[in-house]
Amino acid sequence: LESLHESHRDFIGPHVFVLFGASGDLAKKKIYPTLWWLFRDKLLPKDTLFIGYARSDLTVPTLREKFEKFCKVRTDDPEQKAAFEEFIKRNSYIKGQYDTDEGYENVNTAIAQMEELYKTPVKRLFYLAVPQNVFQPVTKLIKKHCMATGDAWTRVVIEKPFGYDDVTSKALSDHLAGLFTEEQIYRIDHYLGKEMVQNLVILRFGNRFISPSWNRDHIAAVTISFKEDFGTQGRGGYFDNSGIIRDIMQNHLMQILTLVAMEKPATINAEDIRNEKVKVLKCIKPVELKDVVLGQYVGDPESKTEDGRTGYLDDAGVPKDSVTPTFATALLRVNNERWDGVPFFLRCGKAVNERKAEVRIQYKDVAGDIFDKGKLKRDELVIRVQPNEAVYMKLMTKKPGFGFDTEECELDLTYNSRYKDIRLPDAYERLICDVLSGFQYNFVRTDELEHAWRIFTPLLKKIENDRVKPIQYKFGSRGPEESDQLMRDAGYVFSGTYKWNPPHKL
Amino acid sequence: LESLHESHRDFIGPHVFVLFGASGDLAKKKIYPTLWWLFRDKLLPKDTLFIGYARSDLTVPTLREKFEKFCKVRTDDPEQKAAFEEFIKRNSYIKGQYDTDEGYENVNTAIAQMEELYKTPVKRLFYLAVPQNVFQPVTKLIKKHCMATGDAWTRVVIEKPFGYDDVTSKALSDHLAGLFTEEQIYRIDHYLGKEMVQNLVILRFGNRFISPSWNRDHIAAVTISFKEDFGTQGRGGYFDNSGIIRDIMQNHLMQILTLVAMEKPATINAEDIRNEKVKVLKCIKPVELKDVVLGQYVGDPESKTEDGRTGYLDDAGVPKDSVTPTFATALLRVNNERWDGVPFFLRCGKAVNERKAEVRIQYKDVAGDIFDKGKLKRDELVIRVQPNEAVYMKLMTKKPGFGFDTEECELDLTYNSRYKDIRLPDAYERLICDVLSGFQYNFVRTDELEHAWRIFTPLLKKIENDRVKPIQYKFGSRGPEESDQLMRDAGYVFSGTYKWNPPHKL
Amino acid sequence: LESLHESHRDFIGPHVFVLFGASGDLAKKKIYPTLWWLFRDKLLPKDTLFIGYARSDLTVPTLREKFEKFCKVRTDDPEQKAAFEEFIKRNSYIKGQYDTDEGYENVNTAIAQMEELYKTPVKRLFYLAVPQNVFQPVTKLIKKHCMATGDAWTRVVIEKPFGYDDVTSKALSDHLAGLFTEEQIYRIDHYLGKEMVQNLVILRFGNRFISPSWNRDHIAAVTISFKEDFGTQGRGGYFDNSGIIRDIMQNHLMQILTLVAMEKPATINAEDIRNEKVKVLKCIKPVELKDVVLGQYVGDPESKTEDGRTGYLDDAGVPKDSVTPTFATALLRVNNERWDGVPFFLRCGKAVNERKAEVRIQYKDVAGDIFDKGKLKRDELVIRVQPNEAVYMKLMTKKPGFGFDTEECELDLTYNSRYKDIRLPDAYERLICDVLSGFQYNFVRTDELEHAWRIFTPLLKKIENDRVKPIQYKFGSRGPEESDQLMRDAGYVFSGTYKWNPPHKL
Amino acid sequence: LESLHESHRDFIGPHVFVLFGASGDLAKKKIYPTLWWLFRDKLLPKDTLFIGYARSDLTVPTLREKFEKFCKVRTDDPEQKAAFEEFIKRNSYIKGQYDTDEGYENVNTAIAQMEELYKTPVKRLFYLAVPQNVFQPVTKLIKKHCMATGDAWTRVVIEKPFGYDDVTSKALSDHLAGLFTEEQIYRIDHYLGKEMVQNLVILRFGNRFISPSWNRDHIAAVTISFKEDFGTQGRGGYFDNSGIIRDIMQNHLMQILTLVAMEKPATINAEDIRNEKVKVLKCIKPVELKDVVLGQYVGDPESKTEDGRTGYLDDAGVPKDSVTPTFATALLRVNNERWDGVPFFLRCGKAVNERKAEVRIQYKDVAGDIFDKGKLKRDELVIRVQPNEAVYMKLMTKKPGFGFDTEECELDLTYNSRYKDIRLPDAYERLICDVLSGFQYNFVRTDELEHAWRIFTPLLKKIENDRVKPIQYKFGSRGPEESDQLMRDAGYVFSGTYKWNPPHKL
Repeated sequence: LESLHESHRDFIGPHVFVLFGASGDLAKKKIYPTLWWLFRDKLLPKDTLFIGYARSDLTVPTLREKFEKFCKVRTDDPEQKAAFEEFIKRNSYIKGQYDTDEGYENVNTAIAQMEELYKTPVKRLFYLAVPQNVFQPVTKLIKKHCMATGDAWTRVVIEKPFGYDDVTSKALSDHLAGLFTEEQIYRIDHYLGKEMVQNLVILRFGNRFISPSWNRDHIAAVTISFKEDFGTQGRGGYFDNSGIIRDIMQNHLMQILTLVAMEKPATINAEDIRNEKVKVLKCIKPVELKDVVLGQYVGDPESKTEDGRTGYLDDAGVPKDSVTPTFATALLRVNNERWDGVPFFLRCGKAVNERKAEVRIQYKDVAGDIFDKGKLKRDELVIRVQPNEAVYMKLMTKKPGFGFDTEECELDLTYNSRYKDIRLPDAYERLICDVLSGFQYNFVRTDELEHAWRIFTPLLKKIENDRVKPIQYKFGSRGPEESDQLMRDAGYVFSGTYKWNPPHKL
Repeated sequence: LESLHESHRDFIGPHVFVLFGASGDLAKKKIYPTLWWLFRDKLLPKDTLFIGYARSDLTVPTLREKFEKFCKVRTDDPEQKAAFEEFIKRNSYIKGQYDTDEGYENVNTAIAQMEELYKTPVKRLFYLAVPQNVFQPVTKLIKKHCMATGDAWTRVVIEKPFGYDDVTSKALSDHLAGLFTEEQIYRIDHYLGKEMVQNLVILRFGNRFISPSWNRDHIAAVTISFKEDFGTQGRGGYFDNSGIIRDIMQNHLMQILTLVAMEKPATINAEDIRNEKVKVLKCIKPVELKDVVLGQYVGDPESKTEDGRTGYLDDAGVPKDSVTPTFATALLRVNNERWDGVPFFLRCGKAVNERKAEVRIQYKDVAGDIFDKGKLKRDELVIRVQPNEAVYMKLMTKKPGFGFDTEECELDLTYNSRYKDIRLPDAYERLICDVLSGFQYNFVRTDELEHAWRIFTPLLKKIENDRVKPIQYKFGSRGPEESDQLMRDAGYVFSGTYKWNPPHKL
Repeated sequence: LESLHESHRDFIGPHVFVLFGASGDLAKKKIYPTLWWLFRDKLLPKDTLFIGYARSDLTVPTLREKFEKFCKVRTDDPEQKAAFEEFIKRNSYIKGQYDTDEGYENVNTAIAQMEELYKTPVKRLFYLAVPQNVFQPVTKLIKKHCMATGDAWTRVVIEKPFGYDDVTSKALSDHLAGLFTEEQIYRIDHYLGKEMVQNLVILRFGNRFISPSWNRDHIAAVTISFKEDFGTQGRGGYFDNSGIIRDIMQNHLMQILTLVAMEKPATINAEDIRNEKVKVLKCIKPVELKDVVLGQYVGDPESKTEDGRTGYLDDAGVPKDSVTPTFATALLRVNNERWDGVPFFLRCGKAVNERKAEVRIQYKDVAGDIFDKGKLKRDELVIRVQPNEAVYMKLMTKKPGFGFDTEECELDLTYNSRYKDIRLPDAYERLICDVLSGFQYNFVRTDELEHAWRIFTPLLKKIENDRVKPIQYKFGSRGPEESDQLMRDAGYVFSGTYKWNPPHKL
Repeated sequence: LESLHESHRDFIGPHVFVLFGASGDLAKKKIYPTLWWLFRDKLLPKDTLFIGYARSDLTVPTLREKFEKFCKVRTDDPEQKAAFEEFIKRNSYIKGQYDTDEGYENVNTAIAQMEELYKTPVKRLFYLAVPQNVFQPVTKLIKKHCMATGDAWTRVVIEKPFGYDDVTSKALSDHLAGLFTEEQIYRIDHYLGKEMVQNLVILRFGNRFISPSWNRDHIAAVTISFKEDFGTQGRGGYFDNSGIIRDIMQNHLMQILTLVAMEKPATINAEDIRNEKVKVLKCIKPVELKDVVLGQYVGDPESKTEDGRTGYLDDAGVPKDSVTPTFATALLRVNNERWDGVPFFLRCGKAVNERKAEVRIQYKDVAGDIFDKGKLKRDELVIRVQPNEAVYMKLMTKKPGFGFDTEECELDLTYNSRYKDIRLPDAYERLICDVLSGFQYNFVRTDELEHAWRIFTPLLKKIENDRVKPIQYKFGSRGPEESDQLMRDAGYVFSGTYKWNPPHKL
């Protein structure tokens, strides 16, 4: 873990991590385990205490009970077990309402005591693992009671959903802007914490061979895909409120799109990078229904699994007449000098044939082709985000052996193979480190969010108001054929002649 | 071997392969075994007979004795053994002088009999595995007595050396041009038969992501290297007549240079490709001594091998005061729109630290670098010709894990790993197939040869006339440090921070 | 004047133009005449009143007396004379101190009466034609007493100098930011009002043939020049406080530089354009003394004019030991992907050989030149800002007639010739129109200013602290030869073989 | 005339210019006058004699009578008159048949006498101003009797038509190749003698700002036009044998196309330039009828001129049912890396609305346009070949004055205006000088011709075999509307908003 970000070296002085919603699912499954892993690996500031806050009647031991099983503590390792006990010691729990002053006063008192102890202001990170509907009271009361003193910082971390559409999102943003500066707000999009997404900036701006072809003259299409090979698995009720566009496309896929499409920033500072991301978003018009294919999966009666035989509408929590899409492909255009005319496809689906998230840059046909017609297939640069992180360039080579035939092959960088002994940290580990470091690049700025909603709200309203019917597709299929057709019509070429051949399968 | 060139399908009718110099080393070690392998693998025209010709008093059985051991016949395979006997049956031997009519008349008689048998003209391939000094009489007498009749073709294959300098080479070319058309002449440069050299045209012109950066705006330097980790091993007497420039640089490395540098041809026909190669050569001025570093190896007294302790001048056949270079690096410039200002380094050496031949395209520094100064290293595209064929792009990625550091890595295509079960044919196998197919692209045209000599003859004359002293370097070293300095001065950056990490080592 | 900006069509409702410093030179020579011309040409909102404000004891008639002679009213045109009287009628004058409440209360009362009359809020433009040292009280008291009501806007226009260095400029900016929003502040750089400067954005982003070569691959150097062929002419005392760098380079030339160098904005809105200008500035490091040539003119004893015989130090107001530069050339670098390695020269001088302001883009040498060595000169795109507005591309053509010689010539667009009957409005006319239209693109945003000072303050401090001696140059010369040398060393080629040949001289 | 080609300085020794067809129209109207002008201007080798040869019974005085009136001798200039007498003195005339030995023997005898006089071999230029059907005997007999001796050269100049289709052209080429080397043959295409056509190579390869955009990424279409505003004027009988495609398109327009499209040659030597022209031609497939619009003019009854009221079929010599096109537009594709996808339009017509020949490079739309939709028109680079030679770049600028509107304007280089006092030599003057200088670049090589016929013969055969009906268009119109539609369909944009505004009209 020597590659730890340099700014971590500034982790001096006392810190407090206050987790609102400590009793909830996100807290127990994700945040507490992540804090423990960071603690275990000594990636947190030395003097960090953790305060859980929720409405439930809990104690540290009962809280521990909830999250310990997700922490994967190696019980065969005495040192680690001792470390975990040490971690628990640093935790406390405060019970309180989200919308009354009292609990926040208690939180502040606890921190004040810490400050007395350390004789210095404490840096304060407030993590809101709470439902969207209490964002406003919690933040208001943090501002009222819990702000840092002296030169210590206050940072507030929130998780999506950031509103439900442009209006509600703006209301939340305005509310936050009335309380905190942009520098104090950290909106998490956990895709920004993934290794390969973070790698995009270095691949693009750190390599001379990339930039000359990264533009409309040479790129035919950009596809950003998210696929899951399982369905809602009983959580359809929750999902039905949002749908795949709000759940995946409007945030995660759009974030990746901006990183793929943005111009080179003036510096790698968060402000400059986010300026460029916003600049890209400004060049994108709202998505229209005609550029979208929506799908909803039905069960595959021949599937061997229960999940596979269950259609979306069969999920208990889903209304029988739901038109919520579980699959969507959207065609976006970035109307600027670099991308004018290049289709960007965002494609995401549940219950399809495979699980993966990837960026696929399809190059144009070779101009002035001198080989036999149809022999050359298009080059593709693929950045595979998950699972099995990789970068590969699909290209044409001579078919080995006699003669002069061409063949598809690849230049490959598969992490499992190339970096066999490296553990890639989880997105949350990275992002919590980044919050503590004040490194905002991987968080969503207010204007980014505003534009993302500007682009998708009209479509979402249209779908909801007109109750647009999604196209049915079978569980385990590639999704609706209409999706491929949309892409084909806009210039994408499916050649179907190539299958990635990563070395780690060997 | 399904990838066999399509034109082979035209292998109809009877063929004869006449090997002049049948009793020599090249014949027994290379040509006869190659013919056998092609025969074994059914890659020759069905009706092909082989005639050996030399001055020695031989018979087919005594000839067989000479070459059989190089044929690697699997004696445990009865079918193969039978095939070998069949191969032998197709051979005959004619004894004759190189400069008198009689032998050639006998050859022609033999072929005439064959024509009677087949009732059709026989296609005639004459392979000259003879010393340079009999090229002229042999070709003259082939022309006089042995040319094909009807619509059958005659092809003459010759091996280097093609002269010793511009004047002697031109004399030979003029001689040949007086006898044969360009379409009948096949000059072998066996580097043109290597898998990765043949791949260059497809990599360059079959991939859209390559062309935008394949020029002076983006490429800092091109290096074409040939290295051997052994010395002259007692054959220094022969080597001393030519030296490394004639032996390797002026032919093999220049051929690769033209394939790397040439413009896209109008078609992949041999004429068009060779036109482009000549066009590149026209843009290259004669090499000057100031742009060259010459070396000669001395023994390393600490080496564990006899060879390693033996310096070049210690080789019995080498004159004690020889100034023949065993190592040379030359800086060439291609003065055209694509390459103006880009140094091309040709580097070749015997008795150095490793054995390899490769093309290395070093890209320029990233412009407007936003990362910490010095973090980004230059991208490099490497085409490894031998051993261990591969293509890889050295590039920068994010160092996996926390933080935002950059790291050198590679997109890799290593043939041993990617194409594990494919046997790459030997250069001679490919080239003999090409001659039979009339596919001239991999052979050296007269004007190519003329320009290669135009470029190197002044340097060679200068070295010989002034008896320019080569710099001594130790056996097993990287060669003279002055070579690196020459490259550095011309813009090449040795960063020394990266070592290729091919998957097949795993 | 049909080309009037569309937004002018929104000129509805009453407006007031309040001119602080109504008794001063700028007011009488520039602002009042400009207002008159705009009024005469019906370019102002129909209902606009003008209030002059100063400390002097004036009335409208005495004020009129001061400025009328600069208004160039055609006394032979009765209609125009009547219009002028109408213009005068719309003027009023309020006497008041700059730093006490009373006068501002009077101004507001006057506007309030206007609002009563029109029964609607009045849009208010406050123009500060006052010394820098009263900026702060004036703006504070405008904010306190005179802000618009309802949905009418308030806009404050200020003229340079905007501080004297980074610290004083920031103090002023902070002061203004405490009173007004960025949308209310209009900092004038009158170069942004010039036809050819405004044309830069259209030339660059409206022409497909321009963009492919507008980058480091093709451009050798960018030179932005300002030259005056007269000296300080008795006003040296004032000039000596600032020097040529503060007077011309840090503001006017830097503004032009950002327009030449910036990336294409997301839209042509003021915010997006200014974002791009700031992005360029972020990529420029502070200028170092080693990259600067400073000059100070001495009299030319052989000049025929008094001015020409007078050196800078001879000007009565200039201290005899002044080291204030009257000429400066600075080499700047824009460290981004587009401009890495391209020198930007800012060059400005008084009392030199000619009067002109221009941008000169020098292209690189043709790569792979096939003509006789030295025959081809570099292409240059020149945008001549003043006098004699023009754009021309110096290029190579065949020398007309026999043979195949090359010759320098130009593709020309000279406004005097091409647009003979068009009156180009003065910069102030344009800019006042823009303020009234709320069109901020041609005004300097706070962060632009901040960066301009960041870039030049260290140099200015160095010069002042070390009392760096400027190089003497003779009145009427090209300035110090060292300036040419600086440019030459950085890659600019003076070929001296070409003289622009505009058609209007014909 | 100082720009005379350097090689002219080698005009040493005696030369003879033999004009076959001395009694014909071409000779009297074009060749003799051209020789006189060259003689007058001292552009010929000092010792040059002229021999006229034809079947007619002529003498030098009767010959003189025929051509003197076309020589424009200034009778008011005694010096010139004397020079003309001197010119006449150098002429002789030999009467002879074209297909018998005798006349050629006489020619040779005459030259032999000259050689005796000069005591050195005479350089011999044979100019064939004779009908195509005697090309073969004339050349055969020149070869038999009149070839130069010693180191003097022989050059044979021929004029189109060079055959009537691929077969007849090849027959002629093969015939010539059997007699002369390529270096001895000069095929004239007089368009290659025009100032602006000759300028193409310098404009393209002498200017750095041109090359980056000279390709498919930036150019939308290339149009090469030839228009005449008069009809066949009684010579329709002759014209009807060839038609506009053979007359103009297959030769003149194709020659210009290759100069516009070719890659940069290795050098400016004739061989290298012609290699590149052939390379372009190789990338062009035969024109198909579907890509062609054919027209034939009908009289305009409202025309004020007799010519204008006369349709093509009304011309006395034209068969009443002729389908010979007098107008043609063809769409060609150059299938190489630079031009893949870019339409090349060849358009030529008689009896249309104007007289001009020009090359028009239309650039693509600006990518990522930030101006109001439709405001930006496409840039166009126009090279006007005749009349009124010029180069201009149509581009967008800011509409002068207030506001920020865009407007079409141009960067202009009009020769009449810029080079007012220069006489541009006639194409024949240049070409005869070139023949004497041995400068072959402006002459058509055998393989160029072969490809031009390969491209057009199938179309011509199709038209002739199927008697394809041309579309009627009115005398003085723009030609058939279908021509514009063909261009529009292939991507050309007629915006109709711009009219060139050359300064010389002023």
